[in-house]
Amino acid sequence: MNLSLSEKNAVIIGGLGRIGQNVTEGLLESGAAVYVITRNKYKHQAKISFLKKKYKKFFCYEGNASNLFFLRKLNKSIKIKIDILFNCAVHRSDLRPNGKINVQKWKSMISKNSSDLYVSTVFFAEKMKKNPNGGSIIIVSSVYGIKIPDLSIYKNTNSFTPMDYPFLKAGSILFTQYLAKIYGRYNLRFNNIAPGGLNDEHMNRTLKKNYLKKTQIKRLLKPEDIKSIAVFLASDASSYITGETIKIDGGYCL
Amino acid sequence: MNLSLSEKNAVIIGGLGRIGQNVTEGLLESGAAVYVITRNKYKHQAKISFLKKKYKKFFCYEGNASNLFFLRKLNKSIKIKIDILFNCAVHRSDLRPNGKINVQKWKSMISKNSSDLYVSTVFFAEKMKKNPNGGSIIIVSSVYGIKIPDLSIYKNTNSFTPMDYPFLKAGSILFTQYLAKIYGRYNLRFNNIAPGGLNDEHMNRTLKKNYLKKTQIKRLLKPEDIKSIAVFLASDASSYITGETIKIDGGYCL
Amino acid sequence: MNLSLSEKNAVIIGGLGRIGQNVTEGLLESGAAVYVITRNKYKHQAKISFLKKKYKKFFCYEGNASNLFFLRKLNKSIKIKIDILFNCAVHRSDLRPNGKINVQKWKSMISKNSSDLYVSTVFFAEKMKKNPNGGSIIIVSSVYGIKIPDLSIYKNTNSFTPMDYPFLKAGSILFTQYLAKIYGRYNLRFNNIAPGGLNDEHMNRTLKKNYLKKTQIKRLLKPEDIKSIAVFLASDASSYITGETIKIDGGYCL
Amino acid sequence: MNLSLSEKNAVIIGGLGRIGQNVTEGLLESGAAVYVITRNKYKHQAKISFLKKKYKKFFCYEGNASNLFFLRKLNKSIKIKIDILFNCAVHRSDLRPNGKINVQKWKSMISKNSSDLYVSTVFFAEKMKKNPNGGSIIIVSSVYGIKIPDLSIYKNTNSFTPMDYPFLKAGSILFTQYLAKIYGRYNLRFNNIAPGGLNDEHMNRTLKKNYLKKTQIKRLLKPEDIKSIAVFLASDASSYITGETIKIDGGYCL
Repeated sequence: MNLSLSEKNAVIIGGLGRIGQNVTEGLLESGAAVYVITRNKYKHQAKISFLKKKYKKFFCYEGNASNLFFLRKLNKSIKIKIDILFNCAVHRSDLRPNGKINVQKWKSMISKNSSDLYVSTVFFAEKMKKNPNGGSIIIVSSVYGIKIPDLSIYKNTNSFTPMDYPFLKAGSILFTQYLAKIYGRYNLRFNNIAPGGLNDEHMNRTLKKNYLKKTQIKRLLKPEDIKSIAVFLASDASSYITGETIKIDGGYCL
Repeated sequence: MNLSLSEKNAVIIGGLGRIGQNVTEGLLESGAAVYVITRNKYKHQAKISFLKKKYKKFFCYEGNASNLFFLRKLNKSIKIKIDILFNCAVHRSDLRPNGKINVQKWKSMISKNSSDLYVSTVFFAEKMKKNPNGGSIIIVSSVYGIKIPDLSIYKNTNSFTPMDYPFLKAGSILFTQYLAKIYGRYNLRFNNIAPGGLNDEHMNRTLKKNYLKKTQIKRLLKPEDIKSIAVFLASDASSYITGETIKIDGGYCL
Repeated sequence: MNLSLSEKNAVIIGGLGRIGQNVTEGLLESGAAVYVITRNKYKHQAKISFLKKKYKKFFCYEGNASNLFFLRKLNKSIKIKIDILFNCAVHRSDLRPNGKINVQKWKSMISKNSSDLYVSTVFFAEKMKKNPNGGSIIIVSSVYGIKIPDLSIYKNTNSFTPMDYPFLKAGSILFTQYLAKIYGRYNLRFNNIAPGGLNDEHMNRTLKKNYLKKTQIKRLLKPEDIKSIAVFLASDASSYITGETIKIDGGYCL
Repeated sequence: MNLSLSEKNAVIIGGLGRIGQNVTEGLLESGAAVYVITRNKYKHQAKISFLKKKYKKFFCYEGNASNLFFLRKLNKSIKIKIDILFNCAVHRSDLRPNGKINVQKWKSMISKNSSDLYVSTVFFAEKMKKNPNGGSIIIVSSVYGIKIPDLSIYKNTNSFTPMDYPFLKAGSILFTQYLAKIYGRYNLRFNNIAPGGLNDEHMNRTLKKNYLKKTQIKRLLKPEDIKSIAVFLASDASSYITGETIKIDGGYCL
């Protein structure tokens, strides 16, 4: 199976976050040139230095994924054909399911998250549709856009699933399918990855223990798990897969 | 089977639109008191007069479903236990899938539609969770939040599925499930209705013909089809159904 | 909403079991003539006497749902148009998931259950397709054909989900959808009901307790819950619903 | 991403058919030892010679996947740890949806196909559950176990979807999920591949043309498409994926 990406150029939106960074490295290791868009270069300067040193074909741009002006400027500056878009930007919400209604926060979270996805994905789809050989667009959602967590996992923890999160993630999955239909004739493939159970700072010990009762594989998600499916979906090895959502969840949704 | 709603009070958001009006009548016919929230009384004054004349227990309020101030005032004024919430408010979008990116329009459509749903549903759920016998919340989405239409149905028509529509409708379905989990312990049931193929002004002759090739039942959706499932889900006859999405689509999603 | 079935004739396969009996009564109460097929009249003679006394339009036949000879004879004898078929026949399996392989038992359970469904449903569909106004076919599966139970619910019980059960129930759901497409042009509607958590002899106290942790509604399924959705799906109130699977599960699948 | 299978042993049931042969080669190329079970060595002798010549670690056994006696004998003879099971055996049915009921054919097709799957998968799962590092089981179903084809694709062709096919394929998907739960604690992963639109002898020119109207990617499925996902699911690169069904369908199910 040929997973080489050596002739390909990739844009990764959110490419320095916990998941993004691993995918960035995965695509670089497979030979792609990778153009990362980050909201905050300063915050990630150590990672950027590391990646620049290690990979000749790593490039990094600071900007907002829903800022058309920035995207257009970026496009002029990079001047190449883009074959792969990996979109995992996310703004975290703290909208607790406690009965308090915060209209402004809801609107802000829904607007920011959904317009980052909408603007950047359509922008690059419009560019990629001119490619003679199409391209692969990968959007990251979450298992929480497929199966709502049981409240029991949050018992004795301070964690929660934000009110807007299942809405946004389910929206992202159908948006992926919609684009797969709109841009199918241009040989652009759109797939969605739904990870579950990332072992990050939101997973304290109690939550981790509770969560693992819900999975078949008795460990949490590692960013490397996303990296491998991302390379697979980016490569021509998956050229007959489009409109699909692949759960990387240790059996959580079962 | 007892479908009587004679002891029940219902709030219907968007209760004078094409679908809403039928559900309003259905609940009234089944004996419920119905409190309709509409954005524009003036536009619907003929319907309002008709319903007021025909049903003693019909009441109508003008306001915005995402306006907490209005909802609180309304709540004070009606002073009764609410048993049923039917939420079918919608702002129509004209965001064509033509490659043009309109950030402001996207943000506006996503914000308005999703916050109307969020604010009004959580507001009434918070009220209804105090009911000794729980209650039934019904949210209307669309089959386009489940199955993206084929582009072929729009051939030779000026119609389209707006860019934001599948996102919003899939979001609505998962939001319904989320609330079913959050409020389950209060004996509140949350279900979603996904209608498809409403015979309205957006369905011209060509689109109608194309659409019917995709359904098993060779007619379009009538508002009456929604009315009957709405009464069923509102009544105690469906008391073991929660978190479900019921497609009313003539087999479109098959 | 008109749920009257007074002009309609129904066949119920398995119509004297725990679920079937309730549906039989539901359709009779709504005015239908009901022709029940049971594998064992003797076993159910008390119920038969009761129903015969109470309802003039109740009829009962003994035979095997996969026996074409019996079905043809029955058809000749009843000589009427059939508008409704409700199919809930089931042979219970004891194929434990204990690693022991029993080929003969698997073949027997899969053959009997699936051929009862296949033969009787296609037989009556072929008859009903000649109806000028179509008809409604309802097939009962189970939530275990949609969502596999967690092993945790069986802890400290002697119960289990038989090896063949999820296979058969998922098969039943897709078979329903298949027939909805094959017979759609004859205005026959095919829907599936997926109940979960029936409070029967297999539900001991421990299992009941464990199971209720998985549902939102904190009671088990009552046969009456199936009765109401059965009447709804049998009636013209659901005339735009076909190919659908409706979960009656208190939120188990969420 | 490490897709090397050089330390792994694989059993492939149906490993010389159109799909199986490609997967056999894929696993061999990735370094696995491959033990193929075929119903008919004679029919496939050319392929067998070719594979034996090309790969040192290719082995082939003739037998029936639902024959426990054969499986036990085979197990004694190969005497090694099995890490991967790929199960794509299938008996083709000719049960046309023409209204004619053939009980014997139905029973035979359902019994043979389902018991091959049941016996061989449970047999190897019982063996593999003793592995210290678990293993990966991959079962092939079909998109027709997820989305029933429109009758329109068969217009002006002699082809059809056999009556038993959606039943069997949906059954296979839930059976996969069931085993993922039963054997999850042994670190065995069970995944399902749902291919659609294989370009084989059943695809004549008209059917091909009709089918391609239903996909986004405007070519039919090639066995190579299955090969790449099979290697991915067999390898440790997919170690957090279990209970999943991955569609390889060019967007057919959208």
